[in-house]
Amino acid sequence: MISVVILGAGNVATHLFKVFNKTENITVRQWFNRNLKPIDQYKNSVSITDKLEALKDADVYILAVSDDAIAGISSQLPFENRLIVHTSGCVNIHDMDKKNRRGVLYPLQTFSKAATIDFSNVPICIETLDKKDYHLLKHLAVSIGSPTKRINTNQRKVLHLAAVFVNNFTNQLYRIGHEITESEGAEFDLLKPLIIETAKKVQTMSPYMAQTGPAKRNDQKTIKNHLSLLENNHHKDIYNLLTQAIQRTHGRKKL
Amino acid sequence: MISVVILGAGNVATHLFKVFNKTENITVRQWFNRNLKPIDQYKNSVSITDKLEALKDADVYILAVSDDAIAGISSQLPFENRLIVHTSGCVNIHDMDKKNRRGVLYPLQTFSKAATIDFSNVPICIETLDKKDYHLLKHLAVSIGSPTKRINTNQRKVLHLAAVFVNNFTNQLYRIGHEITESEGAEFDLLKPLIIETAKKVQTMSPYMAQTGPAKRNDQKTIKNHLSLLENNHHKDIYNLLTQAIQRTHGRKKL
Ligand SMILES: NC(=O)c1ccc[n+]([C@@H]2O[C@H](COP(=O)([O-])OP(=O)(O)OC[C@H]3O[C@@H](n4cnc5c(N)ncnc54)[C@H](OP(=O)(O)O)[C@@H]3O)[C@@H](O)[C@H]2O)c1
Ligand SMILES: NC(=O)c1ccc[n+]([C@@H]2O[C@H](COP(=O)([O-])OP(=O)(O)OC[C@H]3O[C@@H](n4cnc5c(N)ncnc54)[C@H](OP(=O)(O)O)[C@@H]3O)[C@@H](O)[C@H]2O)c1
Repeated sequence: MISVVILGAGNVATHLFKVFNKTENITVRQWFNRNLKPIDQYKNSVSITDKLEALKDADVYILAVSDDAIAGISSQLPFENRLIVHTSGCVNIHDMDKKNRRGVLYPLQTFSKAATIDFSNVPICIETLDKKDYHLLKHLAVSIGSPTKRINTNQRKVLHLAAVFVNNFTNQLYRIGHEITESEGAEFDLLKPLIIETAKKVQTMSPYMAQTGPAKRNDQKTIKNHLSLLENNHHKDIYNLLTQAIQRTHGRKKL
Repeated sequence: MISVVILGAGNVATHLFKVFNKTENITVRQWFNRNLKPIDQYKNSVSITDKLEALKDADVYILAVSDDAIAGISSQLPFENRLIVHTSGCVNIHDMDKKNRRGVLYPLQTFSKAATIDFSNVPICIETLDKKDYHLLKHLAVSIGSPTKRINTNQRKVLHLAAVFVNNFTNQLYRIGHEITESEGAEFDLLKPLIIETAKKVQTMSPYMAQTGPAKRNDQKTIKNHLSLLENNHHKDIYNLLTQAIQRTHGRKKL
């Protein structure tokens, strides 16, 4: 049995609470938030508190709070030598107070409170200073059905950066697709199956092998047509830059 | 019963042949390609030919050939007043010889010969000069289980352009994610569930509503960290441009 205290009541904390709470070999001993309002509804299934001094004993304390709050809370903890972990992709492990044993449980997925999460689709990247702590965290992650990977600080940072490219930037390309189509009264809905297929393709094929289209073929006539269709200069810049990137990757002549 | 002649033997032609061939109310009367080699293996299930003069009578002729070949083949056809359609997202309907009735069946999906295709995930965009022809093409597309949409030339062109953003450019962002992670010995595999989730999110939520991340939050510290992690200047340019695009979309201060 692994006992856990959760700190924070945002997207990540809430999903962790829910999955831990239904996992046989995990007990959520306590749930802390600086204000009780968001966790009050769970008080019948877990002990809740808004006082760090009232924190109970547990195998691991999960600081699922805003990046900027991690260091501060870690130094306010009224105990020593216990295992504390944060869940951030970019906060340094050494930013947490060294009076406790430290680790990171970085869930490489996008969380929002409203959406349900299947933890088998949430790779959990684990970083610890002490190897013994790694085994406990791995056991915790495996218990909720997540794939796990031991990583170092640099690897966590590049994964967080790569996540911005494949999630936030990709979503912005969807947004541009939305703008372009709706400007002519065409439907963004028509693009949805293609969006899914594009994401599925790289599950089994490298993005290098999966590339197609006018940039890769160096089809200058289509590229010119597309640029003349684009009315927004910012969209033109993105078209040019990504076309060049594809051509560089695939050894075509530089634009 | 709708009778069809397919011209071309590439990705699109091959998938169309397979789905038509197993659809009850569609007969593939003949399959033409300028060389018989790729279609020879199908000669027991369909009449094949490499001679335009030998083309049989059919309700519709589908020119699923390279964009540049569409106009030429359309004028070499040895008949008049029949319905011919191409499958391209960007070739003008008027580029086909006007001796025949003309239309477009643009399948808004990515095809490769190796991958299997479920036509219920292939929206078929239909353009015709004559309304009567539209009904036949719609009937054809519905018979193979595809969603259909009647569109005009401009709408087809912007859909093709938007497809480049959500497919080719998105795939290049996946590629950059691959490069960044592997450069530190982290695994691209860890990003795959996030890639799927990002694509799934916009199936039910607009890309505008789905946006998250440091650019949207205007989290300058993280943005600076990311830029200093990026060693490749081309990747930096893309990071900057897409960060600005997100901030413009979401009304943040311009960088
Ligand atoms: N969301 C994601 O997709 C995702 C994915 C992977 C990792 N992460 C990481 O997980 C952590 C939490 O993210 P989240 O999305 O769950 O955040 P969130 O929804 O914004 O919630 C943040 C939580 O932190 C608390 N908090 C903020 N400042 C605090 C302070 N000074 N003292 C005490 N508590 C404070 C907030 O308390 P109140 O309830 O009182 O406001 C809130 O409960 C972050 O490190 C983030 O980088 C997030
Ligand atoms: N692939 C996609 O994802 C996709 C998606 C939507 C629309 N489309 C459109 O569908 C059409 C076909 O694309 P595809 O990907 O199937 O192409 P493809 O795989 O490259 O095949 C092209 C076919 O056209 C034939 N061809 C080329 N030049 C010709 C010529 N001068 N005369 C006669 N035949 C010629 C080729 O004959 P050989 O076999 O002799 O080389 C080949 O069978 C294009 O208009 C494309 O824009 C493609």
